[in-house]
Amino acid sequence: MLNPHPVKCRFCEIIKGLAPAYFVYKSSSVVAFLDRYPVSRGHTLVVPVEHYPDLLEAPDWLLAELVKVVKKVARAQVEALEAGGVRIIQNNGSLAGQVIFHLHFHVIPYYAYASTRRRPLSPGEGETVATMLRRVLEREQGR
Amino acid sequence: MLNPHPVKCRFCEIIKGLAPAYFVYKSSSVVAFLDRYPVSRGHTLVVPVEHYPDLLEAPDWLLAELVKVVKKVARAQVEALEAGGVRIIQNNGSLAGQVIFHLHFHVIPYYAYASTRRRPLSPGEGETVATMLRRVLEREQGR
Repeated sequence: MLNPHPVKCRFCEIIKGLAPAYFVYKSSSVVAFLDRYPVSRGHTLVVPVEHYPDLLEAPDWLLAELVKVVKKVARAQVEALEAGGVRIIQNNGSLAGQVIFHLHFHVIPYYAYASTRRRPLSPGEGETVATMLRRVLEREQGR
Repeated sequence: MLNPHPVKCRFCEIIKGLAPAYFVYKSSSVVAFLDRYPVSRGHTLVVPVEHYPDLLEAPDWLLAELVKVVKKVARAQVEALEAGGVRIIQNNGSLAGQVIFHLHFHVIPYYAYASTRRRPLSPGEGETVATMLRRVLEREQGR
């Protein structure tokens, strides 16, 4: 096991509504919300509702659900935000750059003319971008 | 669509046996082989047999198969190579760093004391590392 179970998990708190986040997607098993320090406009985290420390410990059925939502979010970034490319990053273990020890996929849109330096998400941008992504994702869920 | 279908696809050639690679896993829908320019010892690519340009275009059932193999490979890297962390990267579109336009997941092991600068894979390292990973992956498949 690469990671121990933390006593207090920030993503569990977000999922339980005890910490704030800009949600773009919610189902019974998977949620997606904006990264607080985005690499680019629309940088989203796809996260299982149940706590698993990393990909190596998660059951296959849940990974299948997660990757489906990763695809939905990536497509929404292209459609709603006009991203020209999307990078998926998923870190396991602090040696590999994992900081929050609750399994998550980064879904990072790329644009032709935009920097990819991490910086804090402003409330204005959070609200605007989350609304744009939710609109596309909710339409897809309704189908 | 982020990527057009290339006339000649290097990964299709590898899968058809027309170009060489160090395979670590093969099923009817998914293969895994070592990256020719590894970031670290054991850096593996997980690739669908059928050609899809990127994650956004691939069907959900195939993404589920791919992520299952990503997990198997990551676990084998920890067990066989004693990796202390594993990073998954999956690039879509050249803006996001995609170079081969056939969907693939990078599964990159991290070690406490090793550089992560890309360099060519030597035949000796390719053979040794692929054998170590295959041994674990074949045992798992046999279960």
